Order: sequence, then structure tokens, then C-alpha cells
Amino acid sequence: MAAGTRVSKGLDGVVVGRTEISWVGGETGDLVYRGFDVRDIVPGVPYESVVHLLLHGEPPSADPSPEVVEALRSARAIPEALLRGADSLPPGLPPLEALRSLISLLGDGSYGYPPRLEEGYRLIARTPVLLARYVRRSGGEGWSPPPEGISLAESYLWMLRGHAPDPTQVAALEGYLDLLADHGMNASTFALRIAISTHSDLVSAATGALGTLKGPIHGGAPSRVSEMLDAIATPDRAEAWIRDRLARRDVLYGFGHRAYKTDDPRGVILHRIARDVADPARLELAEAVERAALAALRATHPDARLFTNVEYYSAVVLEAVGLPRELFTPTFAVARTAGWTAHAIEQASDNRLIRPDLEYAGPAKGRRWPRPLPAR
Amino acid sequence: MAAGTRVSKGLDGVVVGRTEISWVGGETGDLVYRGFDVRDIVPGVPYESVVHLLLHGEPPSADPSPEVVEALRSARAIPEALLRGADSLPPGLPPLEALRSLISLLGDGSYGYPPRLEEGYRLIARTPVLLARYVRRSGGEGWSPPPEGISLAESYLWMLRGHAPDPTQVAALEGYLDLLADHGMNASTFALRIAISTHSDLVSAATGALGTLKGPIHGGAPSRVSEMLDAIATPDRAEAWIRDRLARRDVLYGFGHRAYKTDDPRGVILHRIARDVADPARLELAEAVERAALAALRATHPDARLFTNVEYYSAVVLEAVGLPRELFTPTFAVARTAGWTAHAIEQASDNRLIRPDLEYAGPAKGRRWPRPLPAR
Repeated sequence: MAAGTRVSKGLDGVVVGRTEISWVGGETGDLVYRGFDVRDIVPGVPYESVVHLLLHGEPPSADPSPEVVEALRSARAIPEALLRGADSLPPGLPPLEALRSLISLLGDGSYGYPPRLEEGYRLIARTPVLLARYVRRSGGEGWSPPPEGISLAESYLWMLRGHAPDPTQVAALEGYLDLLADHGMNASTFALRIAISTHSDLVSAATGALGTLKGPIHGGAPSRVSEMLDAIATPDRAEAWIRDRLARRDVLYGFGHRAYKTDDPRGVILHRIARDVADPARLELAEAVERAALAALRATHPDARLFTNVEYYSAVVLEAVGLPRELFTPTFAVARTAGWTAHAIEQASDNRLIRPDLEYAGPAKGRRWPRPLPAR
Repeated sequence: MAAGTRVSKGLDGVVVGRTEISWVGGETGDLVYRGFDVRDIVPGVPYESVVHLLLHGEPPSADPSPEVVEALRSARAIPEALLRGADSLPPGLPPLEALRSLISLLGDGSYGYPPRLEEGYRLIARTPVLLARYVRRSGGEGWSPPPEGISLAESYLWMLRGHAPDPTQVAALEGYLDLLADHGMNASTFALRIAISTHSDLVSAATGALGTLKGPIHGGAPSRVSEMLDAIATPDRAEAWIRDRLARRDVLYGFGHRAYKTDDPRGVILHRIARDVADPARLELAEAVERAALAALRATHPDARLFTNVEYYSAVVLEAVGLPRELFTPTFAVARTAGWTAHAIEQASDNRLIRPDLEYAGPAKGRRWPRPLPAR
């Protein structure tokens, strides 16, 4: 009944448009932000400067970007009505569930089409504040606003703890935020671009992106890496555990990626960051499990070109930064608000409604309702 | 730098999978739910029976579906913590903004992957309750729960008004809900299926779908049809107004659709329903504006095959049902929760991560940060 000339379940290899924001080189293991190889800028470039680069296309005049620092500072103050709504969320929700509602609550009718840069700054600045506030209040801990003049990375940890964080942890988190700030097309960015393509607004689109990021085969898995490391517990148990897991055809989280057919550059850099910040025993365990997993996966899937993905050392780094596991994916979202904003603005700059087809494979037209209907 | 073999901005004609739920015959003007032509079941089949058909694939044993009536009845009671959160949304939000947060609030950590039928019943049953409650409370009007044992359509109007609605209006709304319950692939359903494809949950996916539906070139436009009718005011002014509007290259809402190259069957049926329920002068105006718009559009766009779309007579019917304009798109969403649930379950039944590519058109790799970075 339907005439589809090109069927592509999963849309592998289907190109839905052009972007100037970032390039994912799946064959070569590259991630490039507007011409800058992430290996050349992470760690070292402050997150605020990466935000500047993603949103404006050029590096700032100084680090951290004075414009972005000022824009985020002035966007951070949250209206009272919004705070009251946020503070009335049921306590005890998984933070990722809460964050979806918190991002949605940002939308007060003032976000329009096309999305504007200052709306993006509100999204980027307010997301970590609302998230940290919810987590603290929900845990029955006091909430205090962070000092002025510190970076988004430091401020995020400050708010979650209620006191100044360790500088090594701040630096590690900064590298993580830089690396997760954008990643070309992916399922959540795609969902966001679809929403924008209907002329919807940034908050609606970002809420949908978060709901998509939540899926464990997209952004929702790093905590499962930590669970795996806990279960294995010591390096000598890695091989047997992995073998048993694969024999039961269970998923190994932290390995394999739709785009990368080689090392994910983010994983390589996060591994290096982990060496600076992680507990040595935990790092040793993670490295042993990685070796065992790659060896086993390559034996069982010789043609699949499976590599460690970004989630593996994300988990190790975020653990070392002191974040509880239920905050791993929300923290991914905090980083990605920058990329989401850039993609929303780019989609609107040259828009076409994104609307594919489905092939109908149901019963043919012409069935009759089993009972008479009332006369029209 | 990227190698995309197939570029399809907007994904026109790209088939992303198979569905057995509904078929949109764009060339023939057909909408078929699991083999049933909507022209043969609307009006007449209760919305609860359409829900049954969409979710189970077969018509129910009686009308309205006893199983669905019972499932919705038992899903409708909303936990106190959720009501407290919902009641704390800032008052005075546009109902569509509020609805995005209300749907998100449904997610309490209990919705998982794969999506389950009873989760769908919660979404379908609770969405109109939370929406109506917000609208009443936000307007400073009292809230009372509706009587037991009435249909979802009647209950929705009852809740919005605080008293029993006119049966003609209930019947018209029932036809509207039936017709808007599903529509093959479209941008919001696509966003929902992408979220499910990452193994996210029904609430996250539906929240994203709502954020996508919000866009005026998807579901967010019917109120603009009413605004146009108001601006034109009398049938004799239609031609000049339309001509002037087109001369300024402004969009005419209510005409043209990506899929339909002939009359949208939903529009045809809604026009018939409008004859039963609308104020005769308003209907006469709508018909005069439609004639003038189609004549003008066909003169200015002779090759475009432009027809009246579903939003045009949706606006006339929803006005006649007594709904304020800001509830038009939220009411569309109330109807569509059925289709969203069906698509979420179908996507999970044969899933593959939906993740297309973008062609990178930004600066080539190799740019250098303008300042030295701290040593690693």
C-alpha cells in the first residue's frame, strides 16, 4: 500500500543534512569541534570557551570566554515562580527523571522560534543549578548558592556539595564537560533537531533530547559500567566474569559504538584524565576489565570492530570526581546543553520539516466494524 | 570529510521502518487504522474503541471497549505526590507548556523499557486529567473530579467546565479524538520512536513527542486558523484578505500537508462534523475563506497540489466544542497519546537505534587554539 523506495531502519548512513558544528570521524577516531581536534583542546580549554566555540564558530578572545562567562552569569538567576515549581517536584525521583521535568519547567512561554542565543545561555546556565538544587533538597541537605566568579564545572560540584570542591576533581570534570559538549548527529540531537524542524522551541526540543539521551543504549549506560566494575571487584576476576557474561549473551556496557570503528577519542582522553584523578586500584581494575572485554569481544565478534566507547572511562572519571552514579547521565546532559543549543540554532538557520515515512505492513483497507454504527 | 552516500534533508520519502498501526495514503486521501478506513468508523466508534483497535490491532468485543474502559478507569487515579508536583506548576503558563511538564511529571522512575500496555493506559488516562486540572486551577476556578462511568471525551469537557457538557459537543469531540488518534509517521511520532529506540521510556518519549507536536508547522497551528477567521470576520472580505496575505508571502495556516496530495480525509470528516455542531455563521465564514484560499493558492502555486489540511476544520470543530484556542494543540495531544503508545510498543517490538548522519561542512581539522594550553 505504501511505496517506499528507500528503507533504512535505524537510518544508518542516511545523511539528513549538513552541520558546521562538529565532525565525528568514525573510521579515523576523530572528534572535531569547528575545525579543532578535541585532542588538541582537551584538557586545557575551559568549558566556557568550548561553549563559545560551539555557539559562535570561533575561539573566544581570551580563556575562559569573557562573553560566555558574562552571559551565563546573567542567565543563571532563576525566576521565583520557576523555583517554586522546581522545588515542588516529588522528592526522591531518579535525578534523570527530575531533570526532564526541570528542563521542561524552564519553558514559560517565552521561548520561541527561531531559537535565540540568549535562550541557549539560559538552558546552559540553569540546567546545572536546577539539577543540583533538586538533588540537594531531595536528599534533605541544605541548599546554598555557589560563590560568584567560579567556572560552571566548579560551580556544579560546589552546588552538589555545598562547599568548594577539590581542584583536581574540577579539572577532571571540566575535561569531561568539554568532551561531551557535542558529538555531531546522535539520537538525542536528532530528536532535538526534529522538534526544532516543526518550529517548536529550544526548551521543548531539549526536553525531548533529554528523554532520548536517557535510553541506556544512548546516554543512559555509564552507571552500568560502574556496576560491572563493582561486580567484578578485582582484576583477576575480569576474564571469567566477562566470558560468563558473553556466554549468556548479555550486553557489555561501555563497548561498541554506531559511529566509531576504532578508539573513541573521547575515551582515550578520559582514560588519560582518569590517570590523574582516579583511585589507582579502581583504575587498575578498569584497565584489566577493558583488556579482558576487548579480547573476549574480538574473539566472539571477530568482524565487528568493537572498541571501548566513551561511557567506559566516563564512568571511571565521574566516579573519581565524586559523583553518585544516578548523576552520570544528568551530568552528560549538563555538558550537552551546549551542543543542543548549537544544533537548534543551526537547524533553524536552514530548516526543513524532518518527516520520514513508514512502510505500512498492517491489514489492508476495507475491514468493517463488527457492529453497526449510529447514523450520521 | 564525511562520506554520505544519500543526503535527504527532511527525510522526504525515506522509509525508516514498518508499521501495522495506520496507513496514510497521501495520493488517495486515505487514513486507515489497522485496516479500517477512518471514513467507515468516524463518527460513531467511541474513542475507547479506537484506542483498543490501535493498541490491540482488533476491534473490541463491544463498544465502548470494556477492557479499555476498565483499564483507563483504574489508571486514572493519580498519586498524591504527583498531584502536588502538578499543582505547583507556575500558574498562567500556556497550557501546552504546562502539558509538557505535566506529561514529564508522570515519570516517577517506574516507566521502563520495553514500554508496557498499562504504562500506555496511564499516559492516555492521566493526560486529560492533569491538563484539565491545571487549566481550572490556573484560572482560579474550582476543580471537581468528573462522575464515574462517562467517556474520556465527556470527562475531558466535564473537567474543563466543572459540569456536564452538551451531548452534541461531546459527540463532536469524540469524532475529533478518533480522527487525531494516530497518523502513521509524523514528526512527533518519529521523535517518540527515536527516544524508544535508545531504550528510553514511554513518558520520556511522549514528553519529547509533545515538544515536537508543539511546533506550528506540525500540531501547533490550529489556533492560527481561528485567528485568521477572526481577522477576516465576514465572508465577503475573504478574497481580498487572502490575496493580500499571499502577496506579502505570509503563510496561510490550514492548507498544505507533506503527505496529502489530495483532500485530507480527516478534514473532510471534520467539515461534516462542523456542520452538526458549529455556529452557522462561523461555518459559512470558514467555507468562504477555504474557497478563497484554495482558489488563490492554486493560482499562485499551480503545481503544488495544495489542499485543506486537518487543522482547518479542527479549528472550526474545537471552537464549536467550546474549547479556548490555547487548548487546541493540547487536545490534539490528548487524542494522540493513543497513537504514541501504539508506536512506542511497536518500535520496541523490533527495535534498532535510530541514528542518521550529518554531513560535516565546517572548517577542516587542524586549527590551533590561539593561546597555549596548560601542560597536561
